[in-house]
Formats: sequence, structure tokens, C-alpha cells
Amino acid sequence: MMVPLGYRFAAGYAGIRNVEKDDVALMVADRPAATAAVFTRNRVKAAPLVLTAKHLAQSKGWCRAIVVNAGNANCATPNGLDVARATARAAAQVLGVREREVLVSSTGVIGVPLPVGKLVEAIPGLAAKLSAESFDVASQAILTTDTVAKTAAAEVRMKGGVARIAGMAKGSGMIHPGMATMLAFLFTDARLTPAEARRLLRAGVEETFNRMSVDGDTSTNDTAVLMANGASGARPSAAETRRLGQALREVMEQLARAMARDGEGARKLITIDVEGAANARGAERIARAIANSPLCKTAIAGADPNWGRILAAAGYAGVIFEPAAVDIDLNGFAVCRRGVAAEFSEQEVKRSLEGTEVTVRLAIRGRGRGRARFWTCDLTEEYIRINASYRT
Amino acid sequence: MMVPLGYRFAAGYAGIRNVEKDDVALMVADRPAATAAVFTRNRVKAAPLVLTAKHLAQSKGWCRAIVVNAGNANCATPNGLDVARATARAAAQVLGVREREVLVSSTGVIGVPLPVGKLVEAIPGLAAKLSAESFDVASQAILTTDTVAKTAAAEVRMKGGVARIAGMAKGSGMIHPGMATMLAFLFTDARLTPAEARRLLRAGVEETFNRMSVDGDTSTNDTAVLMANGASGARPSAAETRRLGQALREVMEQLARAMARDGEGARKLITIDVEGAANARGAERIARAIANSPLCKTAIAGADPNWGRILAAAGYAGVIFEPAAVDIDLNGFAVCRRGVAAEFSEQEVKRSLEGTEVTVRLAIRGRGRGRARFWTCDLTEEYIRINASYRT
Repeated sequence: MMVPLGYRFAAGYAGIRNVEKDDVALMVADRPAATAAVFTRNRVKAAPLVLTAKHLAQSKGWCRAIVVNAGNANCATPNGLDVARATARAAAQVLGVREREVLVSSTGVIGVPLPVGKLVEAIPGLAAKLSAESFDVASQAILTTDTVAKTAAAEVRMKGGVARIAGMAKGSGMIHPGMATMLAFLFTDARLTPAEARRLLRAGVEETFNRMSVDGDTSTNDTAVLMANGASGARPSAAETRRLGQALREVMEQLARAMARDGEGARKLITIDVEGAANARGAERIARAIANSPLCKTAIAGADPNWGRILAAAGYAGVIFEPAAVDIDLNGFAVCRRGVAAEFSEQEVKRSLEGTEVTVRLAIRGRGRGRARFWTCDLTEEYIRINASYRT
Repeated sequence: MMVPLGYRFAAGYAGIRNVEKDDVALMVADRPAATAAVFTRNRVKAAPLVLTAKHLAQSKGWCRAIVVNAGNANCATPNGLDVARATARAAAQVLGVREREVLVSSTGVIGVPLPVGKLVEAIPGLAAKLSAESFDVASQAILTTDTVAKTAAAEVRMKGGVARIAGMAKGSGMIHPGMATMLAFLFTDARLTPAEARRLLRAGVEETFNRMSVDGDTSTNDTAVLMANGASGARPSAAETRRLGQALREVMEQLARAMARDGEGARKLITIDVEGAANARGAERIARAIANSPLCKTAIAGADPNWGRILAAAGYAGVIFEPAAVDIDLNGFAVCRRGVAAEFSEQEVKRSLEGTEVTVRLAIRGRGRGRARFWTCDLTEEYIRINASYRT
């Protein structure tokens, strides 16, 4: 993978997870990078989020490093903030940067104290092996119940040179829109101001990470960070910044799709398109209701073209529409027209739904032009198996 | 079961279900009964609901009979209203009452035309065998994926005599608060006006059927009906009406608990008590968020005292509170105090959670006196098995 210039990464096993698999990652910008972050909207915010928000404010959005651990969320414990601060301090010392230039992020079990000693002791070893090549290794270390690492990259050609974007993300359960929804770390070597980084990150999150759902649960730790270190030398014009934002959005969309596809126990990626609502907000609410409906998600798990459940989910989305004006397509097959069953071959549609990608299209006739796209996954018995025994 | 005076019931197999098991029930009041109903808040309302609302208005709340079928929802089909009307007409003719005095109700698959001929042909046979003793038989005929019938009864001693209340309900999936949540038919021989019946029914629904959840899905057909025929001769005073309302609420609570306990695939009834929110609405939102959280429900399925997920669910309920002021108890064991882990024996709590009843108590310190109770069930692999293949 083509990693942006001027970033280095490292990962290792600090002993926080029970299984011996890398559980801590260090991500460093070689110069101060314009940095922005968005956080969970959960009232219960884990300590690393509190400290990261504080450091971003203190450094005015110019940061150098991120320390991420998996296996423990550092949330709802008596000394969480002390642990987060000790972690940032250890990284700042070994990297020779200010404490406020270091961000921290954690994912894993809630309510169990994070063994800070193990984490702090691991950091010098990581700093010693930082390398641009370790982007993929770092993307592995941040995973929890994920079955695959999620990375994506893009390039934008600009007058001043080529700017690169690369991102990594983790998340396969407790993912729900209305927030930053999981951990995602995005890096570009374009030169941006902190305000520009913030604007591009927020716009991208709104259309990608906030438009996917695995189980409707919302974590205490979700965080997305964008760093822009300017190492490419390219300072984008206004038009180029728009193209950069578009490329960033595409990287984030790839990560969002990868997370939905890797939803706990999921066998299918479901893309939901809603069209013809009175406005975009209404379309989004309908799409979200379908994406969060256990009945729709289990029907698709069973390759059952049960469009009645999709219509019913749309009906409780809190949006005004005429059921008799609704068309529904599954994988391009018309299964419902004007609110009632279309003529279709049950067997043919069922065979199609047995694949690993399913598209749901719900269109309302004659109401408006509001549209929205949403990603989710099917709900399988494996989701239950994973989550009934996560801690123990 | 002690059935109120002046009601008769019958059930039979009309051939609507694929399996040969009673699928139609007739419920008749021997004299015009003050009748009230509440319906789903889903935008997509099945035809029987539309016709029932119309008949209630036309008859000014004085009705005689209810026809209920299981196996087909009569929803989202081209001729649903004609089918509902033909059903009511057939019952009115054979019973010698007006069409507007007959209510209809359906539950089952959406989007498949209901075979109206079969239903209409079955009605004379049902009318011929109406009996006060067939309350239980009728309560069996209205079930779909339910594993047990749900009935409950109460008596209220009043100056003018004893008034009886009996109720039956069906529902084990697609149950969600914010509506009438399933089918429930309640009968009393107390003498009430339609306005009183409406008031008592609505107050009861708010605290019972609207406070339970199986999967967060909301059906197109949910209906609760209360009939009061006055056959006991007892005309309650204002104070007696309050006691009658209380008894009705208790009958509805028993039905609500029975439905939550029989949630699709459920092995445990979960009672959630939230205390100390700023107001009752806030408490209800927190309780609902916990009740609808797949992560909380799977943890309880696995007997895992994972209070962090409960705290996290409360955090995304959209209610303002201080996480460090939260206490959580599971089955009476203190597992979280002031937002962090309490000292408890993991093994002891786990053993307790392996039982079939689980109580979750979440209390916020020093914020207010808002409280709410909610019922739900655990989420198991069996839920997925049931719903991935419901139609086929």
C-alpha cells in the first residue's frame, strides 16, 4: 500500500490482550501535522477521548503521534484519565515531542482497569522500530473481533505534486451511525490547516462512518482522526481541496464498507439506497430503520426476499410517506411495486440473495428528491455466539 | 380461567396457515359493549386496522364482535380493505349485528393476499359453536411464532357486584414500544362508557405494552382492544373506575411480561428498572436503550455480567447524566458503583444470571426522581434461526 510521505508506524504485543497478538500501535508524523478528530456521541466517553480532545485544543490542532491499544477500552475505571495521560507522556518522552502533541485511543472491554505499566513499558520498543512500511502491521494491531484488517488509500494529483491519503480502521460490532462509530486513523501528506482538516474529516464522516450500522449499539470509544503533515509539499488550492476531500471520502467509504462487511458474524454486505423521500434527512431515517431492523437483517441472512419487513421498517422510521407509493428492489429484482407484491420468481431472487453482496432499493413515488445510502450487514447466529461470550 | 360474563368465543382452522392448527377466532359480546382500541404507530397500517378504526367511529364505540385470523397479516396487498370488509360483513350477517359493530384483526406474513373465501366460509361454523368456555381455545388460535398462549385475568369487588377482567395476547417478535405492540384483546363485564374504556385502555397500554421490547421492530398490525359489556351489572363509581383501571393494568402487565418472556428464541425474561433520572421520560429512554441493545441482550443470554455494555447503552439514550454517578445491579448484585466496577464475585453473579429471570437496575445518584420499568428478553441464536426462515 502507498503510504503518505512523512509518517512512520510500529506495533507490538504489550500483554493487554489475553492472546499473544499485537495489541498496541504507535503512529508518528515526522513533522507537526494539522490534526482533527471526531468522537462518539455517547454520554459515556472513555478516558482516551477526553484526553485527546484536550490535547487537540492545547496544541491548536498540530499533533505528532497517536498511541492506540486494543484489548481494553480504558473506560469506566477509577484511574482512566491517569492511565491515558501516562501513555501520552511516555510516547512524548521517547519521541522528543510535547505531551499535548500525542493523542491516545483504546478499544476493548469496558470497566476493567488498563494495565498502564505494560503499555508504558512497550512504547520505547515501538519507537525503536518505527517505519513507513509498518502501516499494515499497525492496522492489524488495532483490531478486536474483526476478522480482517481494513485499510484503504488514494492519490490526488495537484499542481504542486501528488498528495497521498491512507486510512486504517477497526470495528465490527457496536457500530452505529450518529457518531464516529469506530476507530479510524487517516493520514495525508497534503498540506492543510487544522480547520481544513476538521472540515474535510467531518464532511467525510457524515457520509460514510455515520451511514453504516452493524448492530445499532454505540460505543464509548469511537474515534476518527485525520492527520495532514504537508510532507508532499503540495499546498492544495480551493478546488484541489475539494478534490482532496472527495478522495478522502472515498477512502473513508471503503473503510466503512469493509467494516459493515466484517460485521460480527456477518456473511453479507448490504447496501441500502432510499430515493424519493421528501428530503435527505427523511431518506436517511428510512435507510437507518431498515439497516437496524433485526427482522430485515435476519431475512437477508436467510436469503428470504421478505420485502414486507422492509416496508414495515420504513413505516416506523418516523417519516411521512404513502405506503402505496413504495417500490422495493432486491439485487435489482422488482419485489414490490406501489406497496404490493410485484411479480417475481421467489427462487430466482432467493438464489441471488445467497451471494455475499445484497442491495436494497426503496423508492417512493411522487414525494420528493431526498436520497440516502447506508451500509450494514446481515444478522446471523454467529453474532450471538461472538457477543454472548466476548468477555469470558 | 374466570371469564367475564356475557362473552362467548370460538376458534377453528380456516386453512390460512400452512400447518393445520386453529387460525381464526371469533369473540362476541352478547350485548353492545363499550369498545376502545389502540393501533400501531407504523406508517404502514394493515387493512384490518383501517377498517376497525372506521367501524369504531361509525358505531361510536359500541361494538359486538371481533374476528381475528393468524397466518396472514392482510397488509400490503391490492385488495386488503375488501377482504377485511367481507370478513366483518360475514360475521355481522351470521351474528345478526351491524357490520360496523364488528372489528377485525390479522397477524402473520405481510404482502401475500389473504384467502378471503376460506375466512368467510369458516365464520358460520365458528358462530355455531360460540361458548364462554372457549376463551382459552381462542387464545391459542391467534398465535404465530409464540410458543405459549398468553392469558391473564382479575376481579374487582365493587359496591354493585364483582367485575371481571380477562385478556389474551399474542406476540413474540416484531415487538417494540411506542405503539400497541402486538395483538391483545381485553374483556370486562363492568359497565363503562366508550370514553372510559378508551381512557383505561390507553393508560394501561402506556405502562405495559409500550414498555416492552423483543427486537425493536414495529409491526404493521399491532392492535389492543378493550370491550366492556356491563354484563356484571356493576356500574363503577369514580373511585371504583380507578381500581378497575389498576386491575386492567395488572392484567396487561401480566400479558406484557408473558410476551417478553416468550420473545422469539428467548430463554430469559429481563426486567429493567431505571431510577434517579431527571424525569420519567429520561428514565424511560435509558430503559428502552438497554432493552433494545443487542450487546446487552446477548451478554445476558451468555450469563455474562458485562455491566459496561449496560452503561454504554445508557450513554447513547440521548439523556443527560453523569456516568460517574451511575450504579448498576444485576439480580441484586452490585456490579457497578459510581460508574466503575464494584467488588463482586464474577462466578457468583454469572451463576445467578444463568436463571430464567434477570433484573437490571440502573440508578443515577443526585439527579432526580424519574423512574421507569421495562421488560425485554435475551437475544439468542434461536431468534436468528426463527427469523431467517419465517416465510419459507
